[in-house]
Amino acid sequence: MPQEVNYTPLTPLSFLRRSAYVYPEKTAVVYRDRHYTYREFQQRVNRLATALQGVGVSKGDRVAFLCPNIPPMLEAHFGVPLAGAILVAINIRLSPDEIAYILNHSEAKVLCVDSELAHLIRPIRHQLPHLQTLVNIFDTAHEGLAGIEYEAFLASGSDTPLPKPVEDENEPISINYTSGTTGRPKGVMYTHRGAYLNALGEVLEVGLNHRSTYLWTLPMFHCNGWCFTWGVTAVGATHVCLRRVDPEEVFRLIEAEKVSHLCGAPTVLISLVNHPRAKTAKFPRKLHVTTAAAPPSPTIIAAMEALGAEITHVYGLTETYGPHSVCAWHEAWDDLPAEERARKKARQGVPYIVAEEMRVVDEQMQDVPADAATLGEVIMRGNNVMKGYFRQPEATAEAFRGGWFHSGDLAVVHPDGYIELRDRKKDIIISGGENISTIEVENTIYQHPAVQEVAVIAIPDEKWGEVPKAFVTLKPGMQATAEEIIQFCRERLAHFKCPKAVEFGELPKTSTGKIKKFELREREWQGYDKRIH
Amino acid sequence: MPQEVNYTPLTPLSFLRRSAYVYPEKTAVVYRDRHYTYREFQQRVNRLATALQGVGVSKGDRVAFLCPNIPPMLEAHFGVPLAGAILVAINIRLSPDEIAYILNHSEAKVLCVDSELAHLIRPIRHQLPHLQTLVNIFDTAHEGLAGIEYEAFLASGSDTPLPKPVEDENEPISINYTSGTTGRPKGVMYTHRGAYLNALGEVLEVGLNHRSTYLWTLPMFHCNGWCFTWGVTAVGATHVCLRRVDPEEVFRLIEAEKVSHLCGAPTVLISLVNHPRAKTAKFPRKLHVTTAAAPPSPTIIAAMEALGAEITHVYGLTETYGPHSVCAWHEAWDDLPAEERARKKARQGVPYIVAEEMRVVDEQMQDVPADAATLGEVIMRGNNVMKGYFRQPEATAEAFRGGWFHSGDLAVVHPDGYIELRDRKKDIIISGGENISTIEVENTIYQHPAVQEVAVIAIPDEKWGEVPKAFVTLKPGMQATAEEIIQFCRERLAHFKCPKAVEFGELPKTSTGKIKKFELREREWQGYDKRIH
Repeated sequence: MPQEVNYTPLTPLSFLRRSAYVYPEKTAVVYRDRHYTYREFQQRVNRLATALQGVGVSKGDRVAFLCPNIPPMLEAHFGVPLAGAILVAINIRLSPDEIAYILNHSEAKVLCVDSELAHLIRPIRHQLPHLQTLVNIFDTAHEGLAGIEYEAFLASGSDTPLPKPVEDENEPISINYTSGTTGRPKGVMYTHRGAYLNALGEVLEVGLNHRSTYLWTLPMFHCNGWCFTWGVTAVGATHVCLRRVDPEEVFRLIEAEKVSHLCGAPTVLISLVNHPRAKTAKFPRKLHVTTAAAPPSPTIIAAMEALGAEITHVYGLTETYGPHSVCAWHEAWDDLPAEERARKKARQGVPYIVAEEMRVVDEQMQDVPADAATLGEVIMRGNNVMKGYFRQPEATAEAFRGGWFHSGDLAVVHPDGYIELRDRKKDIIISGGENISTIEVENTIYQHPAVQEVAVIAIPDEKWGEVPKAFVTLKPGMQATAEEIIQFCRERLAHFKCPKAVEFGELPKTSTGKIKKFELREREWQGYDKRIH
Repeated sequence: MPQEVNYTPLTPLSFLRRSAYVYPEKTAVVYRDRHYTYREFQQRVNRLATALQGVGVSKGDRVAFLCPNIPPMLEAHFGVPLAGAILVAINIRLSPDEIAYILNHSEAKVLCVDSELAHLIRPIRHQLPHLQTLVNIFDTAHEGLAGIEYEAFLASGSDTPLPKPVEDENEPISINYTSGTTGRPKGVMYTHRGAYLNALGEVLEVGLNHRSTYLWTLPMFHCNGWCFTWGVTAVGATHVCLRRVDPEEVFRLIEAEKVSHLCGAPTVLISLVNHPRAKTAKFPRKLHVTTAAAPPSPTIIAAMEALGAEITHVYGLTETYGPHSVCAWHEAWDDLPAEERARKKARQGVPYIVAEEMRVVDEQMQDVPADAATLGEVIMRGNNVMKGYFRQPEATAEAFRGGWFHSGDLAVVHPDGYIELRDRKKDIIISGGENISTIEVENTIYQHPAVQEVAVIAIPDEKWGEVPKAFVTLKPGMQATAEEIIQFCRERLAHFKCPKAVEFGELPKTSTGKIKKFELREREWQGYDKRIH
């Protein structure tokens, strides 16, 4: 149904239109020494949209961006859909081969690439039969590929407003390729309706308004920045762009720009908490931190709160537009001891206001009891579940079996109905027939004062089948031995859950800060013919 | 489209379901010495829905409620749609004849009536052929009509949860009969989708969250309480019910229940500002007041802010689910002098985030210039414009002519794009060919220190056709003469805009606090054959 008196298709394009009307002179985007007002933001978006149309982009075409959290990446979130096209924001940590796969699978007609990342495209440039236009974004580097420069491309467009091209709110607005740890990435389709509702959901859950300033520590190529690209714009707040998550720079910007909100994986929080400036930093206003990806340990939550942050813990997947659940806070918990509050908050909680339904079920899709003990798979449905995988109807049907999206995450349900993740299905350790939650073991090890970061995986064991092994990064200047860590666990956990081995060093990570457990597992399971996921 | 993996019809029924799941032990509703938790609230709603089904209510049937802001009125906002039916909440200030018209036009099968209002039904009970079930709500009065008592009716239901009956989000959820000043009332239809989006819009604009406490000074029968019935529930906040807007009791509840939000027409604010307790009252937390209906004068805004309230000024009509626009605040205005801030805030502003479009147009539906001077009619479209008038396709088509809803309100557009109402189309005074905005004259008179309330209308004049006359209520113990008021205006306004007559006394008002200008006009224009609207 197109526009009628009493029906407008829901689309995030309405958000920028309104904020540019209401707050034309207000700072919309800050990046280094540049400040764009909402009027300029909209003008640049109009130029991007018309420039894209000028090179032949039409309704439903795909337009790819490969760049960090700089203004063009934000502009793409409005300019590409305003042109009627579908945004493909590509993870900048991927290999040329993976990027080629995504560009070819999505048949992107246009690619805008930050010139610092040109080396990722150069070797594959001639393997991209669908790509018609290449646009170079000069930011830190100024030697591009054969193609037009981004500002010149914008100049080829017009800042005359375009009508919203959305006829059906269930049309796709973006495709986000999952960084699948095995197999080829799948293209998760978001719709205008889902993006609109989820963006407002974010605004409601974290309390954004026109006085907010949002720092871009979460990659925009990750679930379209959990839809904050659209949500921050909806309320007329200010975006602070950030090319690279450097803790020193993050602290500087929080103070200089009076940041009120940011999102990040626990690894981002860990890097802040353990930075020397954490000892002296003073946030100029309350900092609302939204975290997810892996459950933050109670230790990290307590440390961030001590710094003056308020943590909102959310959980979701690329397939749910980012967060689907939130550990919704109860006023009655305000006065609990810090440790107990952190334990409450480490849970993944309940669905967002706009997210409708979430269950934890057994193999027969029956709800598990709310006993904080029985493991089941988290399943979801509602307006913020993806439209499906682009051109993969079988994978979509498999993910949607039984009328619900299957997350592949294992959780328990507490007596109060809040869920708590125990593991990815593929991460759980089965030792002598007993399940061991790697998260439970990790949260225990995080309490050790010398530990900065930890990942626990299953390793092969002749007697038990699998046993836990911990990979630990120590805090700078701190010491601990494997025996100490194991002993620390034995004082706090059932013995069968304690790691049988501990290895120290850096942890391999994805671009969004998730620890790549599969890499650790591959190494440990070489020569075995099972359990490499 | 019914429930799918990635599509749920938008409906406010989702809000209560979620809040009862997330906050079962939290206080949902306070009324006198009663406190209902969200679990009890949901149980009572389930019982109401199943009881309605038990007496034969089925999909699309109309169920009417005639009662003040007491818990059953709130329960009706969920229980009636949960039964698949459509809520008709009737204005309790109407006459028996008007109520009969509404019950018969809507063909309501069930009527729940507060026993203090039984006298309104008694004389018409036998003129209601469609009414099958009458339910008596005993609150202050315990002598009902022939029919079951409300609590017994609930007991006849079951608290087993019902599935959401919404197949299409564009189905009606309620019909609100406009208190038309002439002619028969028209039944404004709201949809599940519109109610959902508008409720979230309210939450966003006034900053409601789970820590909020909302006082029911706005009638729930008025635009379903501007959708706050659903919005306050969405975030798990607490409803404080209020049978009657008595300033003394309002002050008491603000303090005792730590109220954070309320809504009300300026007359409600006037009664608070001028109450003796205003001199000593201390709000225990910031009080967010949302006001509309008539533009509040700068004087009233300044006085409320001095009391410790923060005012949000909104504007809309029954046909737009209540508020459609908001005077969205700019941080840059924070430091303006109080008087200038109040003048900014007295404007009706810009569309809500969820409200999409609003224009001010001339007779040819061309936008008027943004010059703060040229009058035009306010027109709107978007998801919070009504579905239409119930069984009045011609009136609907007339209101929707040209693809926009025509408000009948006259406004100017300021250079910053904010609109400011000048008058109802039918209220504007045309004197010697010049337009006079009654609102402008009223705002001037409000600045007079002795004036509590004022209404300005056109009266006949042999020379000029029409001239302004002011009806003034003075503050208790204060004095002023007609000459003083006129002189006060002449010092501040063009002389042709100043009232030629001033009359002192009480002003006639509607149940929502709007001054009934048509009654004043009828009196003044008796014997004339024009301009009685």
